[in-house]
Amino acid sequence: MGAQEPVVVHKGLENVYVCESNICFIDGENSRLLYRGYSVEDLVENSFYEEVAYLLLYGRLPKREELSSFVESLRQSYELPKVMLDLLKQFPKNAHPMDVLRTGVSMLSFFDNSSDDYSRALRIIGAMPTIVASFARARKGLELVAPKKELSIATNFLYMLNGNEPDEEDARAMDIAYIVHAEHEMNASTFSCIVTASTLSDLYSVVTSGIATLKGPLHGGANERALEYFLSVGSPEKAEEAVEHTLNAKQRLMGFGHRVYKNYDPRYKILKPLAKALSEKKGKAWVYKTAEAVEQAALKRLSEHKIFPNVDFYSGILFHALGIETDLFTPIFAMSRSVGWIAHALEYVQNNRLIRPKAYYTGELNKKYTPIDQR
Amino acid sequence: MGAQEPVVVHKGLENVYVCESNICFIDGENSRLLYRGYSVEDLVENSFYEEVAYLLLYGRLPKREELSSFVESLRQSYELPKVMLDLLKQFPKNAHPMDVLRTGVSMLSFFDNSSDDYSRALRIIGAMPTIVASFARARKGLELVAPKKELSIATNFLYMLNGNEPDEEDARAMDIAYIVHAEHEMNASTFSCIVTASTLSDLYSVVTSGIATLKGPLHGGANERALEYFLSVGSPEKAEEAVEHTLNAKQRLMGFGHRVYKNYDPRYKILKPLAKALSEKKGKAWVYKTAEAVEQAALKRLSEHKIFPNVDFYSGILFHALGIETDLFTPIFAMSRSVGWIAHALEYVQNNRLIRPKAYYTGELNKKYTPIDQR
Repeated sequence: MGAQEPVVVHKGLENVYVCESNICFIDGENSRLLYRGYSVEDLVENSFYEEVAYLLLYGRLPKREELSSFVESLRQSYELPKVMLDLLKQFPKNAHPMDVLRTGVSMLSFFDNSSDDYSRALRIIGAMPTIVASFARARKGLELVAPKKELSIATNFLYMLNGNEPDEEDARAMDIAYIVHAEHEMNASTFSCIVTASTLSDLYSVVTSGIATLKGPLHGGANERALEYFLSVGSPEKAEEAVEHTLNAKQRLMGFGHRVYKNYDPRYKILKPLAKALSEKKGKAWVYKTAEAVEQAALKRLSEHKIFPNVDFYSGILFHALGIETDLFTPIFAMSRSVGWIAHALEYVQNNRLIRPKAYYTGELNKKYTPIDQR
Repeated sequence: MGAQEPVVVHKGLENVYVCESNICFIDGENSRLLYRGYSVEDLVENSFYEEVAYLLLYGRLPKREELSSFVESLRQSYELPKVMLDLLKQFPKNAHPMDVLRTGVSMLSFFDNSSDDYSRALRIIGAMPTIVASFARARKGLELVAPKKELSIATNFLYMLNGNEPDEEDARAMDIAYIVHAEHEMNASTFSCIVTASTLSDLYSVVTSGIATLKGPLHGGANERALEYFLSVGSPEKAEEAVEHTLNAKQRLMGFGHRVYKNYDPRYKILKPLAKALSEKKGKAWVYKTAEAVEQAALKRLSEHKIFPNVDFYSGILFHALGIETDLFTPIFAMSRSVGWIAHALEYVQNNRLIRPKAYYTGELNKKYTPIDQR
């Protein structure tokens, strides 16, 4: 007590800097997103998820032999410990896949024999797709598909999910989705990861926190609801009326607007043509066309308020076209973002400070306990 | 970008207010800790954990019928779903109990059929001791002890752990330990709970985050290490020399000092006589006497720097005297603190704002992707 200055409560910690970081730069006015200094467009054009993961974790692009040993370790982690797989099969079929993923990563800690945090990181990142795909099959009573170590993370995920290898175009689309979701500065889930890391807790705890936080509908889950909206609109012709109705009712249009981007989201630009191509290929062109009509109608009213479509607007359509069930969208986001979470946690603890803010007390003081019958 | 003011990075968010709250008031200069306006001393004197839990969750002391229905619901939650108990029994025996508790609470979400967050809260709070006690027996190959619904949380925990009911003195000591650990304002684990809650994620996710964050040695775990220190010192006579050695080597004396208390920790005052009485009763008086000698020696050097013993100094001795294994101390902290975590999460979302701070980017900009053989 005794502070003379007026108390400022930073609700939502908006515009409060909690740390320095070399990982991610977002210029929301100019639609720029850089991972370790490289634009996301450049990485999507030239790179692939495993290399981007190396870049985010280690701070630079790998040399050839570094990349192969990194990829090799990652692939060793695709396979879950047998006991863990047995436990996973006993999970109730109606469990939410995000609850399963959160529990699965937490459980993975039981089987840890890593010598350091970087190998622990690869165990977690490599195992997450197996947890999600295994549960997605188990809940439908399907035989589990063991991972194939010769496949990339994205390809292997689709393989484990569907039981057959995706063609090159599908695999590449999935890989790009992985890249654009890998990292996004100090969002809520990443922040919860560094709060957990700041007590010097372990990486399993860190990623478990991240999943727990991403699960909330204000964070993960927007692409799911955007897709559901397009499906409910039903056709491009009905888009304008539906958008009018939604906006006039002061309801939020999912996949539009962002606290940081005040112009289009660069990830949206990357995903839109992919969503188009895949929807057409899979005979779901009407969903894409509906979304595009929704976009046009919404932009007429929202662009003057600097509200533009974000990453979630077309990612759901892309996943849907790939035949992925809606409730797996947020787990996929988590699988991809795990790299960003871990990169931030490892960076933070290098120069650690326990994160312990304050709450401003507005309650009563010095109340006197009263016996139960006098209340 | 384009901000003109110099950037301030709030490392550790020290002295940053993140929200208003009516739950807890700490006056670190004057050693005061209030729960909802009532001093912790008053509550320890007059109340018991279940009533304190009601107070923290609902903001006021319960009337008689409110308390009985609250206690009744809580006791209904002692018993774990059978599938969950079966899963728990298959956890590897060498898993850390905090990893087990984090996984167990996360897993509890699979079996949720609560209609609202308050009943969900009771399910979590009621089940946590059963998860911890069941695993503590299972890992030793002992038969699990089913909870007894007629017992209080604290008594039932000791009963499930040991297979027989504690006497009144032991049960009361455990209950008081529960009360003093139930809540402590915006510490790191509580903060991680509100970060998770701020995305509107569910209560299982919230408490899972809290456990993940409490696990770190900078947060939970200090009482464990304080006890180990006393055991390693070995006798009161050796205390002075050991303390000199520790402090001269610039090592931290566990259970001393606190970011908020600049005078004695009120919880320390409550636990000290209990630790004394129980140690003597259980034939472990030497441990208590060693701790007291450590305290005297340390105070000579540290009190002028306003470094005083905190809650962790004697709580480990108390748990040790009750025959509890050292690696269960932090899970017990979590079991008790779950009430504070949930109270803060439920309060925060009533006036919710997504918690999304910023990281100040200090890395390079506009790097150009180079092909792998040119790196």
